Amino acid sequence: MSNQSSGKFITLEGGEGVGKSTNLRFITQWLDSRGIDYVQTREPGGTPLAEQLRTLLLEKREESVDPTAELLMVFAARAQHLSEVIKPALASGKWVICDRFTDATYAYQGGGRGLDRALISQLEQTVQGDLRPDRVLLLDLDPEVGLQRAASTGEADRFESEQSAFFTKVRAAYRERAAAAPQRYAVIDASQPLGEVQARLAQELEDIAGAA
Amino acid sequence: MSNQSSGKFITLEGGEGVGKSTNLRFITQWLDSRGIDYVQTREPGGTPLAEQLRTLLLEKREESVDPTAELLMVFAARAQHLSEVIKPALASGKWVICDRFTDATYAYQGGGRGLDRALISQLEQTVQGDLRPDRVLLLDLDPEVGLQRAASTGEADRFESEQSAFFTKVRAAYRERAAAAPQRYAVIDASQPLGEVQARLAQELEDIAGAA
Repeated sequence: MSNQSSGKFITLEGGEGVGKSTNLRFITQWLDSRGIDYVQTREPGGTPLAEQLRTLLLEKREESVDPTAELLMVFAARAQHLSEVIKPALASGKWVICDRFTDATYAYQGGGRGLDRALISQLEQTVQGDLRPDRVLLLDLDPEVGLQRAASTGEADRFESEQSAFFTKVRAAYRERAAAAPQRYAVIDASQPLGEVQARLAQELEDIAGAA
Repeated sequence: MSNQSSGKFITLEGGEGVGKSTNLRFITQWLDSRGIDYVQTREPGGTPLAEQLRTLLLEKREESVDPTAELLMVFAARAQHLSEVIKPALASGKWVICDRFTDATYAYQGGGRGLDRALISQLEQTVQGDLRPDRVLLLDLDPEVGLQRAASTGEADRFESEQSAFFTKVRAAYRERAAAAPQRYAVIDASQPLGEVQARLAQELEDIAGAA
């Protein structure tokens, strides 16, 4: 999908408490320092409608949520986000830095909820066509450590309230995705000191920029 | 899908202003008079989450809505509705009377928006498996007449605000669906006097009840 005239599509992935917010700031500062024009966005969300879907997905509710309904809401938000934000930005030559994308769907709905990977793959093809991230930056961390870090930051949403077995499956699914396509994934050990995590991020960003 | 121990699944379909509300009351009164246990529901909607999705689908917004995002929201609401309301009701022997269902998706998103029927069919299979309505009661009316009738009932939503060419395609898609499976569809001329429409509905309901 990428070509000389289009921007780079970078996603940041990982479970709870891996340090995405801090490292997103590092990434955007790096891009600013290079004068690279970019859009920072997130999933689910990134447009007014997609953010409303995010609210429906994350809020805790009495009603139990059918896993297929959840999956279709995620891809509905993604279709809107792609059409309104991601594709126009890439087409205009901007980089897109997205906090979670389809790898999170494979991890949370596929790994965590146990939904059929073939169904996720079919929806990915329907919604994205051939568009895939140029590079996935996966912050990898033992979920026990991540959940302890995350516990200190406010009330848990519908996903954060899952049991630890759920997050073990989320992490395994992320790592499986990365292992299957190592040229597109950077698996970064998020248990390292922040300086080392960010040195690795900078190295990846140099590499992506160099490939432009 | 239907069998001796399960209830009947009846859907009422049609474009704007065909008289669904009035005829739904007639249908439920008929069921009450026979002592048939039923659930009356609607799409999009029918559960708290699905009704929230309905609101997102119907409200007018600045943002233009990607047709695939719209389609996935419709099927997300349907998956939730089936899992929480329709399947449990049918399994317990109740009839389900649903104001619009998947035929409306073929009509509005397929006919009206021009989305690929094969994609709709694929999502139908994913979300419904083999479950299909036992009988579709299609109130058929020239959209020019229907829109005039509907215009007198409050502010137009995002669908009602479409141009008349949209509703011509909606009607054509409904009729095409009915023509392809005449044993499951009753196409009822909604331009007739109400008494005749309802005589025809009563005849269909007798037929469905007789087939139980």
